This record gives sequence, structure tokens and C-alpha cells, in this order.
Amino acid sequence: MRYLPGQAQQLPGNRSALASYQASHFRFEVEDAVATLTLNRPERKNPLTFESYAELRDLFRALAYADDVKAVVITGAGDNFCSGGDVHDIIGPLTQLDMPGLLAFTRMTGDLVKAMRACPQPVISAVDGICAGAGAILALSSDMRLGTARSKTAFLFTRVGLAGCDMGACALLPRVIGQGRAAELLYTGRSMSGIEAERWGFFNSISEPDALLADAQALAGSLASGPTFAHGMTKKMLQQEWNMGVDEAIEAEAQAQAICMATNDFHRAYHAFVARQRPAFEGD
Amino acid sequence: MRYLPGQAQQLPGNRSALASYQASHFRFEVEDAVATLTLNRPERKNPLTFESYAELRDLFRALAYADDVKAVVITGAGDNFCSGGDVHDIIGPLTQLDMPGLLAFTRMTGDLVKAMRACPQPVISAVDGICAGAGAILALSSDMRLGTARSKTAFLFTRVGLAGCDMGACALLPRVIGQGRAAELLYTGRSMSGIEAERWGFFNSISEPDALLADAQALAGSLASGPTFAHGMTKKMLQQEWNMGVDEAIEAEAQAQAICMATNDFHRAYHAFVARQRPAFEGD
Amino acid sequence: MRYLPGQAQQLPGNRSALASYQASHFRFEVEDAVATLTLNRPERKNPLTFESYAELRDLFRALAYADDVKAVVITGAGDNFCSGGDVHDIIGPLTQLDMPGLLAFTRMTGDLVKAMRACPQPVISAVDGICAGAGAILALSSDMRLGTARSKTAFLFTRVGLAGCDMGACALLPRVIGQGRAAELLYTGRSMSGIEAERWGFFNSISEPDALLADAQALAGSLASGPTFAHGMTKKMLQQEWNMGVDEAIEAEAQAQAICMATNDFHRAYHAFVARQRPAFEGD
Repeated sequence: MRYLPGQAQQLPGNRSALASYQASHFRFEVEDAVATLTLNRPERKNPLTFESYAELRDLFRALAYADDVKAVVITGAGDNFCSGGDVHDIIGPLTQLDMPGLLAFTRMTGDLVKAMRACPQPVISAVDGICAGAGAILALSSDMRLGTARSKTAFLFTRVGLAGCDMGACALLPRVIGQGRAAELLYTGRSMSGIEAERWGFFNSISEPDALLADAQALAGSLASGPTFAHGMTKKMLQQEWNMGVDEAIEAEAQAQAICMATNDFHRAYHAFVARQRPAFEGD
Repeated sequence: MRYLPGQAQQLPGNRSALASYQASHFRFEVEDAVATLTLNRPERKNPLTFESYAELRDLFRALAYADDVKAVVITGAGDNFCSGGDVHDIIGPLTQLDMPGLLAFTRMTGDLVKAMRACPQPVISAVDGICAGAGAILALSSDMRLGTARSKTAFLFTRVGLAGCDMGACALLPRVIGQGRAAELLYTGRSMSGIEAERWGFFNSISEPDALLADAQALAGSLASGPTFAHGMTKKMLQQEWNMGVDEAIEAEAQAQAICMATNDFHRAYHAFVARQRPAFEGD
Repeated sequence: MRYLPGQAQQLPGNRSALASYQASHFRFEVEDAVATLTLNRPERKNPLTFESYAELRDLFRALAYADDVKAVVITGAGDNFCSGGDVHDIIGPLTQLDMPGLLAFTRMTGDLVKAMRACPQPVISAVDGICAGAGAILALSSDMRLGTARSKTAFLFTRVGLAGCDMGACALLPRVIGQGRAAELLYTGRSMSGIEAERWGFFNSISEPDALLADAQALAGSLASGPTFAHGMTKKMLQQEWNMGVDEAIEAEAQAQAICMATNDFHRAYHAFVARQRPAFEGD
């Protein structure tokens, strides 16, 4: 990996600190263990470039080992989330590539999704305005999504002559909104309104635009102050059980939950309950 | 199995009768082939204990061979469904266990879910009031759920420092209400209202509290008077095809349905249709 | 295959032309690369027979190689979609068959679903009136479904003494409307209203009865004038990733999308964008 040269502080047990990471192609700020990642080219509605893709991938890979970030919020500067792969910076150059070059690109974008889903931190997207193409995939690959009524989410790959199967969309979207609705969005590339997105389960809730980021950060903050080791296990198992049979999933959860029952946070919760206090979780 | 000593009457073909089963840790009544299982410690909102868990597991395992129970309704005494694992009877002792002991517990709870899904009888939960933790899993593991507007269903494992992956929740809940909504409930442990539960497909319908149990029993009764061998095959295949490819599922159903076409109930239905009568199904 | 004797015109590259196909057991008309397949026994609400099943299966298998059909609309004559397997023509004879004969029948019906899902053309069902039994499966097996408020969709296999696991229903229906709602429809055989169908994601939208077929053809037409090679890849991957893990699905999509990036349609879209024109896709 070419990422984070010298920036990720190495800690014992293979853990590292990322709170002071200085991002190059987006904003990255950590407060109270909640990282806010802001795509920040508002005059172009925050498109992705080859460089921002790679830095996002490398950052989420580093988050797998980061001990000082407990939840992540993704948002966009201005009133838009992300317009997807930049036509001039990405689509144009892609038309010049041979097949190995094309596959290297599609694997790189897929690696970003894999990294977002492999890190233990819950990822919450705060979606206002335009959320299109690879931007829609960023939202889809998150654990939860908060949106606005005026937002427009479009899996518009078909509009540039491509298939809906981009970065895992044909696997992920049907499980979020159902197979029939996912098929329509992926075939037609049409925008899903914020109201539809909430109604169909794509958005967990709708916020006023002015409150959206704060709402997402509040949700992230409540998770960051919870039993974060257990949250990481929840995230892992939601991914791990994706294509298991039910009986195998039950055994997998028996093991995963037994591990969580051996954590201090479980004991803290019990003792706080007995003492009629709120538990103070520490993530171990 | 330590269960049902001398109570399950053995019949030819490995079948047994359970209608007269006397339950120790809950109420169990059978009328017209519909079993109503009532969690019955209303002053504590019907928590589960080590003993009631084990008896539930053993009873559902026995139901796999029972010939005189054709559908099951699960409900709670008073105005609540189930508050989950008792803090004093279960959580406290768990904090004292070593890892093999913890795994023995989580496997035992998982075995209850496996047994509920393996028995041929459709299981319908009638959910009013509090439906929390393992109680929410009991409802989730049922085939169908009827609820009330005032009910509160919470997968609150995170509140006691544990992960959302309990007894199969990360596999089951996303398929019932969608991946994004399931993630929110499992990460936050927040209550899902009865209105949300119906809107998201967790509840099949909402009843008035006074009518809830009767509605669930009426649904169970209509299934119990139907082609119950075929219902058992529907249940088996809903489970069996969980992680098959579509083509493999189609072949599996071709075999399963061919078996059903060789039953008397299929012939009864045809002859009744020709005679312009209602078919009287007998479950063979 | 006994199908399409002499009718499918062979073209280079194993492609064939189907626009002039003369169907025997339903109507089949192609206009602007959109095929409209009309079940046409309105006086009986368009039931299926052994012959129409077989011809449908063979036609969808032939569509896999057809170069002149880019999208398919399925509809029913009169004000109904399809009443399913004819009681006199199908159910009666089935009661006379031995087990190999029964399995031959259930495999034949399943082969129709496999063929509908294997052909590259998006299939859109336009559902008004009665949509029952195998008719409901035809709609379910389509990629998208447009309906009317007055329509009634019933997976009524249980009413004839059979199981809900018919032609893939236990695999497909839960992914479209959720596991709990699917279980209810498959166990009870009750009708789903048009309003429920839209609310649950079975219908993509509701049309006025008079506008339904035109709406479905307009949607099909817009897809047929799009990047149809890419649409075929979207359809293939929606099927292919059904029971993959997420990481495997992401790699599968990296390969599939890289193939699409090597098509002319992708280049056409880019050059049209740069020239501020609408792209004219040609499906290659």
C-alpha cells in the first residue's frame, strides 16, 4: 500500500492511531472518536478521482487497525453528497485503457467497498443533494444512511453505457431495498427520491438539510460511546453471514457472541445494571 | 435430550402426540391442533431463564415428530410478549462462566432457533408490549408475526455490551426488514414501534391488543385445517433455499412439489374442485 | 428442443432473429425490439396449459440467442394477467401421473423460470386483474412488475393442497417483498392487493388499467434503446450473485464491468457527453 506514509502511528498489538491523519483528497476530522470524512470539491458536486478513490481505499484499510476511531460519517461539502466518478478525470481516461487496465480500475473501486465493509467501525453516510454513480455506491456500502427529502440517489451506470453491476451493487442493493426495486434502479439509472429512499429502507431516516450532518454525527457518537468491540463484531457478522445457511449462521453467532461475553464491556453492563447506573463502555 | 420424560406418547412411524404435554416453565395448550405457548411470568414481563430456554428447545425438537399439533402460536401473559434473558437469572451467572461455558450457553440458545425453524408447524408470534432481546429473537425466528401498535420490539443486546449477532439475528433480520433497517436496530438496540414493524414487514399485521391472540389463533387455525403436509414442505424449503442459487432452488422445489403432488390432499383438492365443494384436507 | 421449427432465423455468431416468430399458444408481437407476449384465453382468464408452458419455455430459451429482441413485456388479454395452471387441462391429468411423471412436470415449469432469468432481455410483467398460481410465478420471475390497484396476486398453491415452493417461489418471493410477508402469502395463499404489492416492492409502480400496457411498453422501450449489452450483464449478475459472499460479488462485478467498459456503447456515451449530445446506444 502506498497510503498514509508515516502518518499512521503504530501502537502495540498492531493497532494504530489515525485521529491526526492529514488527508490529501478529502477532509478527514476526528472528534470524540467519530471521524467525519467530507468529500470536498463542492463546485463539481464532489466527484471521485483516481487519487481520491485510492486514498479512500487506503484510509478504510488503515481504519481496520485504528484504535482511536470508533465510527465514521461520510458526507459531502456544499449541498451534495457525491457525483460519482468524474467524467473528465475518470471516464475519459478509461476509454483509453486495455482490458488489464480496465480490470485494475474496477478492482480498485471494488477494493474500496471491501475495505469499507471490512473495517470494524460502523459507517454512516449523510446524503443530501446529488448522490450518483460511485457516490451512490459509497452510500450503499455504508452500514446506515441518513438522507434528506430533496436528495437524489441514482445508480446511473447505464447512462454511460455500463451495467448496473458496479462495485457490488447487484449484491448489496437488493438486500437493502428488495430485488424488484433494485432491478428498476439498476436497469434504468433513474433517481430515487429521498422520500422513496426512506420508504424503501435505503435511508434509515430523513433529516432537514441543516440538521443532517449533526444527526449523522449524533448517531455515530452514540455508537462510538457504546461497546465498540461488540459493534465491530455485529458489523463483521452482518458481512460474514451474507450467504450462509441459517443453521451455520446460528453457530457462527454462538461463537461470536461467546467472544463478546468474555469482554469487559459485558461485565461493565451487568454491574452497572445491578447498581442501577448507566454503563460506561470502553470498547474492550 | 433430557426433555419430556414419559410425556411424549410414541406412535407408529416415529410420530408422537404432544397435545397432552404438561409444560413446566410456560403454559402449553393445544386446541384443534393449534398449540398456544404462553410465556407466563407477567410480573417480570415474561423473561427467559436457563430452564425455560431448555424446555422450549426440547419442546420444539419434539414438535418435529408430533402428529397432533399442526400450528403453534407463541404469546406472553399480561400485556407483554417477552423481556428476554433475565438479568439476574441469566446475565449474572454468564459473567462467571469460562469460554466453554459461554459457548455452551450461546449454542443452547441457538439450538432453540434451529428447532423452531426445523419443526414442520408454522409458528406465529403474537406480540404485544415489550418484545426484547431473546424475546425479539423468538418473534424473529417465527414464520409470521402479528403485533400491536403499542408494542416495542428491541434487539437490545448492545445495551448489555454484546453484539447484535445473537441466535441468528444478523442472518434473519436483514431478510425480514432489509439490510439497512436491520443494521440500525442491531447497532443501536433501539425499540422498533409497532407501526414501524408493520411498515417494514416485521409484523404481518397489527391487531387491537384485545384481539391479538384470537387473530393469531385464527390464522394458526386456518393453517391447521389446511394441507399441513404441504405447509411443512413450504416451511422446510423457505429454510432450505436460504443460500442456494436460483437454479438450484428451482430444482429443489421441483422435487419438493412433486412429492406434494403425490399426497392425498392434492387429490382431495382436485376432486372437491370438480364437485364444486370445499376440500377437506387431512394432512396426508 | 422441439421448439420453433424453422422459425428462428440463424445469423452469424450463433445469433438468431425472432421478430417474425409466429406463436401457437399465445400472442407474440415485436415492435422496435420490444416483444409483447400476451396470454390469450381471456374467457378463462388466460390459464396455462401443458402446451403453452412448453412453448413459453422454448421461446425464452430461444430469446437467449435472439439479436432483434431487446426487452420483453408479458401481459394477459382481457382484464386479467393469468389464472395459472388450468384445473381441467393440468391439475386433473397430474393426479393420474406417477412420480417420474410428476417430476417431469415440475421440472418443465421450473425450466420456464430458469429460461426467463437466463435470457439477456429485461422482462417486465404488466399485471391487471387475476394473477394466480403459475401466473403469479410468471410475474415474480420477471425483472420488474407494473400493476394496477385492482389486481389480485395470489400464490394459491396451498388452496389445491400443494406447497408454496413452486417454480422457485420460496427463493424469489422473500428477496422481493421480505421473508415475513412472503411466508404469509405462501402459507395462506391469500391474494395480495395491488396497493399492498406496490407498498411491499412487488410492483414497481401502479398504473391505471387503461395505461398499464403502454406504461410497461414505454419502460421496455426505454431499456431497448439503451445499452442493451450492459443491461444483459446487469441481469446476468443480479442472478449470478444471488448466493455469493459480498467480496466474491465485488470481484465478479469488477470483471463484468470491465467487459462493459470495452464495449462501443461506453465509448459512445463518453463522446456524446463531451459533445453535449444524447448518446445513441447500439447494444455492442
